[in-house]
Amino acid sequence: MSDTLKEAVCTANLKLAASGLVIDTWGNVSGVDRAAGVMVIKASGVPYEGMTAEHMVAVRLDTGKPLDTHLKPSSDTPTHLALYRALPQVGGVVHTHSVYATAWAQARRAIPALGTTHADYFHGPIPCTRELTAAEIRTDYEANTGAVILEVLAGRDALEVPAALVAGHGPFAWGGSPDEAVHNAILLEHLARMAALTTLIAPKPRPITRELLDKHFFRKHGPGHTYGQD
Amino acid sequence: MSDTLKEAVCTANLKLAASGLVIDTWGNVSGVDRAAGVMVIKASGVPYEGMTAEHMVAVRLDTGKPLDTHLKPSSDTPTHLALYRALPQVGGVVHTHSVYATAWAQARRAIPALGTTHADYFHGPIPCTRELTAAEIRTDYEANTGAVILEVLAGRDALEVPAALVAGHGPFAWGGSPDEAVHNAILLEHLARMAALTTLIAPKPRPITRELLDKHFFRKHGPGHTYGQD
Amino acid sequence: MSDTLKEAVCTANLKLAASGLVIDTWGNVSGVDRAAGVMVIKASGVPYEGMTAEHMVAVRLDTGKPLDTHLKPSSDTPTHLALYRALPQVGGVVHTHSVYATAWAQARRAIPALGTTHADYFHGPIPCTRELTAAEIRTDYEANTGAVILEVLAGRDALEVPAALVAGHGPFAWGGSPDEAVHNAILLEHLARMAALTTLIAPKPRPITRELLDKHFFRKHGPGHTYGQD
Amino acid sequence: MSDTLKEAVCTANLKLAASGLVIDTWGNVSGVDRAAGVMVIKASGVPYEGMTAEHMVAVRLDTGKPLDTHLKPSSDTPTHLALYRALPQVGGVVHTHSVYATAWAQARRAIPALGTTHADYFHGPIPCTRELTAAEIRTDYEANTGAVILEVLAGRDALEVPAALVAGHGPFAWGGSPDEAVHNAILLEHLARMAALTTLIAPKPRPITRELLDKHFFRKHGPGHTYGQD
Repeated sequence: MSDTLKEAVCTANLKLAASGLVIDTWGNVSGVDRAAGVMVIKASGVPYEGMTAEHMVAVRLDTGKPLDTHLKPSSDTPTHLALYRALPQVGGVVHTHSVYATAWAQARRAIPALGTTHADYFHGPIPCTRELTAAEIRTDYEANTGAVILEVLAGRDALEVPAALVAGHGPFAWGGSPDEAVHNAILLEHLARMAALTTLIAPKPRPITRELLDKHFFRKHGPGHTYGQD
Repeated sequence: MSDTLKEAVCTANLKLAASGLVIDTWGNVSGVDRAAGVMVIKASGVPYEGMTAEHMVAVRLDTGKPLDTHLKPSSDTPTHLALYRALPQVGGVVHTHSVYATAWAQARRAIPALGTTHADYFHGPIPCTRELTAAEIRTDYEANTGAVILEVLAGRDALEVPAALVAGHGPFAWGGSPDEAVHNAILLEHLARMAALTTLIAPKPRPITRELLDKHFFRKHGPGHTYGQD
Repeated sequence: MSDTLKEAVCTANLKLAASGLVIDTWGNVSGVDRAAGVMVIKASGVPYEGMTAEHMVAVRLDTGKPLDTHLKPSSDTPTHLALYRALPQVGGVVHTHSVYATAWAQARRAIPALGTTHADYFHGPIPCTRELTAAEIRTDYEANTGAVILEVLAGRDALEVPAALVAGHGPFAWGGSPDEAVHNAILLEHLARMAALTTLIAPKPRPITRELLDKHFFRKHGPGHTYGQD
Repeated sequence: MSDTLKEAVCTANLKLAASGLVIDTWGNVSGVDRAAGVMVIKASGVPYEGMTAEHMVAVRLDTGKPLDTHLKPSSDTPTHLALYRALPQVGGVVHTHSVYATAWAQARRAIPALGTTHADYFHGPIPCTRELTAAEIRTDYEANTGAVILEVLAGRDALEVPAALVAGHGPFAWGGSPDEAVHNAILLEHLARMAALTTLIAPKPRPITRELLDKHFFRKHGPGHTYGQD
């Protein structure tokens, strides 16, 4: 079972690398098998070139304990675990340092919904977390990174806002599967780039109206969607 | 007859994708056969890879009713129809979310004619529509998108201003044929990029003079043009 | 004789296209044979793909009259001629609409000498012309474009400032040969990009000192140069 | 002995060129063999295409005198020598004019530590030197360039801050080997780009906290590092 998941997570990691969002070894994709209680994630610091399913590491979803011992899992493992535990609809998580989304995270600004491109995928602004406190950094830093993401998602459907920016750090994105999570990370970067260019042209751009946001989001998502083939 | 048009529209869609202006499945090209009263447009949400003329859908120009039933036409179909009905000289329409033109649309600013590159293709600023009202969004949204484009073109020759920006959305471009429309969409993106970079260097750049605008536009267009080979 | 020059000018045009500076058919390179009194330039509006020496057109340096009649020379021919006539040390001229240099031209700003990269190739700011008057645009527009370039070069050695920006239009670059002119056009675009990014970081950047400008320029140019192999 | 070093330095120069950081012939990599008292550096003004170990030049670390006479060493040789002499832990030095790092150097601004991407490689801001005085430019310019870099490193471990910007000039980077130095030059450019984009979104971005800086830097560096495989 976890072999199939390892293949899917490896494929998603390679798709992420091919998208140009990954610089150096910065970035990782995970997936979850909830029935088995297992999360699979890229090993820490492994290069993308020559990557195979062997470089994916399984850990227990409840305790975080590795089920594989040949390689250490990504150092961001506790952040991924925190998201899966709190968000049952999520099947894949991605972390990147893609340049435009990271620039917004470094600016500590949510990405406003400035256009319908944004509204096609995100039902509102892409939130930015608060900064972690010194205590949160010193102890359980990676798990606390997950916690501040969950704070900004409070009361939202995570699949209607499938990404968040960690202040001073970079983006996390997610979706129903590892492949969808990678797709959302790619879209996030395009939206972050378009929004940055918009601020170049008009320093304080206004978000689109609630009506336009709803129109576009629900054209693509939910029971009444009309976009695409049936 | 509509087979030839489907080939031309498919070719134009593929040229659009090859130009790098299309992200994900955002973008579509249509063409018209006015004698037959038929518009052909890309099917909704179809990937560009492996696209053939079979993925093009014919609809009636007057009623918008599909003449093909194997695939749903692009969700932007009513916008394209509105443009063809009001602009008899137009033979092809393109919609993209190309990043720089979309950034201007998100900033809700017309692209001023800042240089002769612009004047070679557009006889004045590239207009930006007003925002749609809540009522216009709720009912016949896509047709109303066409209507606000027509508002900003009022009194202009559409082939002298072969594109417009929809506020908070993105660009539509057009031309005498689907191929020309794609060419104009590509040029628009270059002009949008150059204009954005100009605002980086000089925050409030002045447009070129009327004389320079006319000189360059009419060097390339109209009965007295001198550019190119005869 | 003019066949060799046509080959050189064609090669330089193709190098320009390969550099990525040319969008659509915007751009042209010329060369001169002063002994023969002949200038060779790209034909007007000819695509770069499939371009051969046959697409180059010879004109008389003194009168501007075509020596070839199979194709019309570039519409910018009178600008090139004006530069060759006034600047005897120039053997090649390039015109592009490369995006960053054009953005400075649209902003109507000289590119200041902000760093040693600039000083390695330009011994001072890259000047920007004044705007042409309505009368200068209406009559002999292209020759007047050459004239305003020569105005901003007054008193300078053209090979120490091998490019200028035409306000509201774009860059012209030159050099001892068509190949050198293309090289300078490519460097100009890099310098324009670096200078634009500098203004993003520090809105009013100061130029480097005269001493640093001289040091770098004369390390590479003139009798005392030390850069490169002998 | 110096043949092996020449191979390593040549390989690092080619890696630098392949990274896209080098424009024209701007850029050079050196390496050192401290036991032999020899530095090897790229020859001056040599193109990257067709470059082999034969194009690397050995000079004495103490006097700077060439041990090879077939080619002149890079004109930046005295800067490299100054760094090796003062920084015993450094085994490779790189100089580039990469666009974003050069833009910061031209803006005469240190690159602040705006995010964890930065903190993963640099334990604090990437410093920018003061401008050289006219006297420092006139006499021993290249050695004085090394001296102002050493000034801004004073009291720091050079491997915790493996790059600096020379005001009005561009970046120098270093590492334990020529290969590491190139890696740091590549990372520097990414950080410079992200920081520039951050200032586009938030004109005066705040650096990350000391706790976050330490957390990320020491996750990757030093005896307690946890990142990567053992």
